Amino acid sequence: MKTVAVRISSMRQYDIVIGTDLLANLASIVDLRPYTQVLVLTDSHVAPLYLNTFLEHHRHLRITSHVIEAGEGSKSLAVYEDIQHRLAALNFDRRSLIVNIGGGVVSDLGGFVASTYRRGVPFLNISTTVEGMVDASLGGKTGVNLGSYKNYVGTYAQPVAVVIDVTTLRTLDERNRVAGWAEVIKHGLIASRSYYEMVTSKHPLRFSDSELIEIVTFSCELKRSVVQEDESESGVRKILNFGHTVGHAVESLSYQHMPLLHGEAVAIGMVAEAYLALTRGAISGPEYDDLKARLAGAGLPTRIPFPLPDLTPLTALIEADKKNHGGQIRWSLISSIGACDHDVIVDDSRMVEALCQVVDLR
Amino acid sequence: MKTVAVRISSMRQYDIVIGTDLLANLASIVDLRPYTQVLVLTDSHVAPLYLNTFLEHHRHLRITSHVIEAGEGSKSLAVYEDIQHRLAALNFDRRSLIVNIGGGVVSDLGGFVASTYRRGVPFLNISTTVEGMVDASLGGKTGVNLGSYKNYVGTYAQPVAVVIDVTTLRTLDERNRVAGWAEVIKHGLIASRSYYEMVTSKHPLRFSDSELIEIVTFSCELKRSVVQEDESESGVRKILNFGHTVGHAVESLSYQHMPLLHGEAVAIGMVAEAYLALTRGAISGPEYDDLKARLAGAGLPTRIPFPLPDLTPLTALIEADKKNHGGQIRWSLISSIGACDHDVIVDDSRMVEALCQVVDLR
Repeated sequence: MKTVAVRISSMRQYDIVIGTDLLANLASIVDLRPYTQVLVLTDSHVAPLYLNTFLEHHRHLRITSHVIEAGEGSKSLAVYEDIQHRLAALNFDRRSLIVNIGGGVVSDLGGFVASTYRRGVPFLNISTTVEGMVDASLGGKTGVNLGSYKNYVGTYAQPVAVVIDVTTLRTLDERNRVAGWAEVIKHGLIASRSYYEMVTSKHPLRFSDSELIEIVTFSCELKRSVVQEDESESGVRKILNFGHTVGHAVESLSYQHMPLLHGEAVAIGMVAEAYLALTRGAISGPEYDDLKARLAGAGLPTRIPFPLPDLTPLTALIEADKKNHGGQIRWSLISSIGACDHDVIVDDSRMVEALCQVVDLR
Repeated sequence: MKTVAVRISSMRQYDIVIGTDLLANLASIVDLRPYTQVLVLTDSHVAPLYLNTFLEHHRHLRITSHVIEAGEGSKSLAVYEDIQHRLAALNFDRRSLIVNIGGGVVSDLGGFVASTYRRGVPFLNISTTVEGMVDASLGGKTGVNLGSYKNYVGTYAQPVAVVIDVTTLRTLDERNRVAGWAEVIKHGLIASRSYYEMVTSKHPLRFSDSELIEIVTFSCELKRSVVQEDESESGVRKILNFGHTVGHAVESLSYQHMPLLHGEAVAIGMVAEAYLALTRGAISGPEYDDLKARLAGAGLPTRIPFPLPDLTPLTALIEADKKNHGGQIRWSLISSIGACDHDVIVDDSRMVEALCQVVDLR
């Protein structure tokens, strides 16, 4: 018997650039000229707003645009396969570039396409939503849904750069802007009390462009440091899931009643999970009440906005997730305002108590 | 404007284990007990031969088997999606394992599924063909075909281990065994004259198990060193493509006449490309003739076995590939017997001359 030992190491690096009016000045940030051709992937909401700006500023490039329908429905293997065929017909290769312009759906889908077409072509993320700016467009998670299984097929892949133009938030509707803010508040809760207090000091729409740049930069720095330490989420990266165990279940359930945006569901999830932190003595009663007030002040929901006959549908959804984690839910819970633990085990009865804080039983 | 610089490094390592009767003694090589469940992916040819052996030796594990139809047709996004749904229904997670038993189709497809299901679950390759043992099952290339575009969708992903049981070659039919030998001969041509002479010293079926272990180990060591240096094929890994520029075109063309196996087409491709090396003075006339004799002695074809009215269909297929390499074919050509250059530019007229060496014009 013989053994051949194989070792493969790799290093990838890229910049996240945050500013104003970057879309019109992209050439000064990323040199697109070396690429033989470009495919711009965007959605039906974003295309009318920014596609022309991009095309006008890059007349010298060979560009094809591919517009998908806005919304989660486009995160499917069918749409993925469509784009793969498009790339093959265009003779796309490794010296070509995919530019994703939009929110999380576009960057998740476009990143997955790019990382698997001919085993990987370069891609650039230009984020136009709060959630994209502080979460989806960076960190390297790509993927699509597999029927009702969210993000079940995908890769870890890093873009050549992430461009965040906070000016584009002006065209984002208020509900989406507020919902995205839930992730910003989450970053404060898990990593910095002063940041948490600052980002909840006024309504999300009242921050100036220069304040937004500071805020987005902090969130990106946080995500960067966590992802660098643990790209594949085997340890510390899990703290980014605070609010998401309950949040995902609330989001899924809401589709049967009155659909919530991801960030809205996460806000409700953070209330329930902060309650678990309260029962463990990690935060105080006044801190818990203050958190709810700050979320409400930001325009975010703190309770599920439709009544439920009982908790069963909600606990069933959380349990379904549990099966995928080896029979026991491992929670990411704040250990104080501005710090977070992961892989915390909690009694089932405590979980029920926590859910009661966010559900109106009828 | 702010910039956040992200750096991600990773290191993956695994063993390739080569021996006899390993399938029945797998437990001594890889400890499967830590895995919560196992999916065995295999094909309709291999399942009747080895699936029961595997199941009998792992009664204590929670195992599901998934048998795909043998042949290249299973390397499709449709089959890929089927398996993804199967895994989701089984509640597969990162502590589960996919075991690929078979040749290149199984390891390419299974590796792609594993590397993208929930952004990556572990997989083990157990190779049962010559080509799988010396090429497909190692090196980390995974993928499926996109219609007629071969291997257009996939990833670079490393298995937890590769198990090569040369005993399984006894059940492989002669044509496939001989065809796979073309890749073994290629390894000699590009890297070692003495290895080249040894592996062509008798017919591929006349090597003993212990000789096979030595041969497969050499080929794995070679592939390991090349892949470690250049995983994503931006430089030295290209030398593994010797014989493949013409070989791929011959293989595609053969489907319209009389289908050739990949290795058979590569043997013909090596003759044409060795002729290019001859015209550059890299090898001598006697060395070129000797190469043809050695390939023929191994039972491999050295000319396209069907007549063509002209060279156009063949050059068109090579040109189609050319588009994907920025307008000029970059050849990997031997620089002597046992050494290889990459990114060599050759005159079109020379290419035509080389093709004339392997085509009967009618």
